[in-house]
Amino acid sequence: MSESSQESSQKQHIDKELLLDALQNDNIEKFRSEFLELHSYDQATFFKELDEAERLHVYHFLSPEEMANLFENLEIEDDEYSDVLAQMTPDYAADMLSNMYADDAVDVLNELNKDQVVSYLTIMDKDSAKEIKELLHYEEYTAGSIMTTEFIAIAANQTVRSAMHILKSKAPSAETIYYVYVIDEEKRLVGVLTLRDLIVNEDDVMISEIMYDRVVSVSVGEDQEEVARMMRDYDFLALPVVDFQDHLLGIITVDDIIDVMEEEASDDYSKLAGIADLDSIDRNPISAAKKRLPWLVILLFLGMLTASLIGRFEETLDQVAILAIFIPLIAGMAGNTGTQALAVAVRGIATGDLEDESKIKIIIREAGTGVITGLTCGILITLIIYFWYGDLFLGMLVGISIFFTLIVATLAGSLIPLIMHRLKIDPAVASGPFITTINDIISILIYFGIATTFMSYLTK
Amino acid sequence: MSESSQESSQKQHIDKELLLDALQNDNIEKFRSEFLELHSYDQATFFKELDEAERLHVYHFLSPEEMANLFENLEIEDDEYSDVLAQMTPDYAADMLSNMYADDAVDVLNELNKDQVVSYLTIMDKDSAKEIKELLHYEEYTAGSIMTTEFIAIAANQTVRSAMHILKSKAPSAETIYYVYVIDEEKRLVGVLTLRDLIVNEDDVMISEIMYDRVVSVSVGEDQEEVARMMRDYDFLALPVVDFQDHLLGIITVDDIIDVMEEEASDDYSKLAGIADLDSIDRNPISAAKKRLPWLVILLFLGMLTASLIGRFEETLDQVAILAIFIPLIAGMAGNTGTQALAVAVRGIATGDLEDESKIKIIIREAGTGVITGLTCGILITLIIYFWYGDLFLGMLVGISIFFTLIVATLAGSLIPLIMHRLKIDPAVASGPFITTINDIISILIYFGIATTFMSYLTK
Repeated sequence: MSESSQESSQKQHIDKELLLDALQNDNIEKFRSEFLELHSYDQATFFKELDEAERLHVYHFLSPEEMANLFENLEIEDDEYSDVLAQMTPDYAADMLSNMYADDAVDVLNELNKDQVVSYLTIMDKDSAKEIKELLHYEEYTAGSIMTTEFIAIAANQTVRSAMHILKSKAPSAETIYYVYVIDEEKRLVGVLTLRDLIVNEDDVMISEIMYDRVVSVSVGEDQEEVARMMRDYDFLALPVVDFQDHLLGIITVDDIIDVMEEEASDDYSKLAGIADLDSIDRNPISAAKKRLPWLVILLFLGMLTASLIGRFEETLDQVAILAIFIPLIAGMAGNTGTQALAVAVRGIATGDLEDESKIKIIIREAGTGVITGLTCGILITLIIYFWYGDLFLGMLVGISIFFTLIVATLAGSLIPLIMHRLKIDPAVASGPFITTINDIISILIYFGIATTFMSYLTK
Repeated sequence: MSESSQESSQKQHIDKELLLDALQNDNIEKFRSEFLELHSYDQATFFKELDEAERLHVYHFLSPEEMANLFENLEIEDDEYSDVLAQMTPDYAADMLSNMYADDAVDVLNELNKDQVVSYLTIMDKDSAKEIKELLHYEEYTAGSIMTTEFIAIAANQTVRSAMHILKSKAPSAETIYYVYVIDEEKRLVGVLTLRDLIVNEDDVMISEIMYDRVVSVSVGEDQEEVARMMRDYDFLALPVVDFQDHLLGIITVDDIIDVMEEEASDDYSKLAGIADLDSIDRNPISAAKKRLPWLVILLFLGMLTASLIGRFEETLDQVAILAIFIPLIAGMAGNTGTQALAVAVRGIATGDLEDESKIKIIIREAGTGVITGLTCGILITLIIYFWYGDLFLGMLVGISIFFTLIVATLAGSLIPLIMHRLKIDPAVASGPFITTINDIISILIYFGIATTFMSYLTK
């Protein structure tokens, strides 16, 4: 699908040969004239593939400010930042960090150890250090942790002309100039207007006349997932962040929200699959195995529990070995129903769709869904086994087990994440493999329970 | 977490009581003065909850143009659009559609039947109808299908002053004014500049001097997932769409891309869980069951296959019933390993991480991962069974089965989606339940194959 087009669009933008050649021959003029023409994402892509010797040339060729642009777009593993910064001189690194947008700089600093953070902040220019220090205080995954303080705020009692003047002067350092926030003397957020509003209105119009005074804002402690949801619903390019007294603290821009959405989706997805972290594809089997082993080992022990549970019915099994044939079928159906219900519940919690519904309503609906799917599958399997093995009683035994199993598994799959959410535990922790194994156990208890009770009726 | 804050922010914005009161008392003044102050998303949220009688009042109170803003933010099920439009007079509906951004209008029209589309397009004003007709031609899920034609394009040989003049005049109808595209006489895309560039430069500067001429663009037939990836990487607010000769056809804005990302993530997720469609939470058990039953029934038949496979080993089972105890353990491990590998592969394909890697490299890495996880789990289970049951041979039998099962299951989980991707089948169709069942079968074949071969060594 995109293979060829992606390659061609990359080729179009980066002339790697030329850049590498300029690097190796220490041709600073040639390198800069080509490199600085590139979009900073392309610069970062090129930089990422260089070895240490080549990178040292780049640090030498680019100013800390130019490097800051590149660094904002650099996508490397969290634990690599420390190494990359160590390649630079401390002054260069601190200078670069101070030139980055404060929220991006904070993201980098969060990956370093405390000593490193302190030393960079000490040699950095004071204004940037102050901004960054303020942002470092916010808890991860809150609005505060992803906001930037580089926004444009103006007073209401001025004209479009003077607002445009302020905007022009602040444009180089602000993260977005497309939204202008209006504050009162106490720095409380009272209005917002877009650059579009400034452009289409006459120069002499007062800001207070054209500003939109029902500003949608988020509180600084708000969960980043909720911020993403608002941004998506309202189609904003930026959202203001306020404290409990409506003081404007910062803004969150749409590009950061896209990263949050990507992160959260990937998070839910990897937990459904039972993988520790699916951020990027591992290039070697050992690190891939490390991410997958935790769940596999837990499952091994849970599996032993299931095994010892079946072991209790060994007598039943000894007499009617044919029962064993349907274990994977029943356990499989239980596992899959549970995963379906789990996925719906986790999704519902993530999108907020389940927030406004009463728990009893949810239970009734899920039980109803379980009854319908259970009845359909139960009758179907009874008929299949009857015609296949000519054994109506065996068919009914499996059918009834499937019926009850599907009801219980559906309820378990949806209620466990809801309860966890209530207890403020991330519901996605109740991942696919966990629900599957719980349902395995439940289904086997139901199946062998029924079988042992009515064993005398089984043929053979 | 967000429950309370969301409610309060909603309350802050919408005074439902007042609006409903104005509607019921036919107080058009009061309704309009409050309603038009709201963000169009809040307007849509309010509108969504009204019954038909109340909605008729709204159509009466609002102009088609005002209704168009609301409609762009309306989130209802795809099959409800037809009913809502039928509530309006045809003229009103057509007028509203022509006032919507062309890409949003196309999204609505795509949900109607052909007769309806033709009749609305016939009574609509000609310019809008022409724009919409052009967009209706593009295939779903391509760049063309999500782009809008309401962009701002200018010539290179003019000053910032004249460009600003054009921008002001086009601002009311353009979807974004923050990017201005530069085209030559043949409408080929030759440059781009942001409104920020226009603002910070002097009035007399020529556009050709300040425009960025290495424009990143997408081809009109490009997959929307690839467009989303580029938007995320480059942090753009809009991307230009061109044909094979670089003619500028339209632009894609970041708000549409956020919807695409949401859609694609939800898509991969629901397929991993084996649910037909996870777009929204079903409010009644019958429609919920309908979405889950297809996979459950398929699994029932696949499960019967597994059962009949075990049936072939009935003789072995009759002699050594204890073997049955470990069936769920082995099948469960196979299923989970397979799902993990599947999730990594589907994700890798979605993010493009796997595109640039040779297939042989991927096979070697996945086989390596399988060997490591298999060896770890195999040895562990051998030891557990040895100490638990005091039966080393049984432990080794299960351990060796786990070892081979994990290797094969890991390979199956990652190679099946890669092959499907190569064959241009959506790899997420190889959903969790499917891979799980395939791996169930493989694992049971391995387990009973080994057990039958070495049965004479089994105690008991």
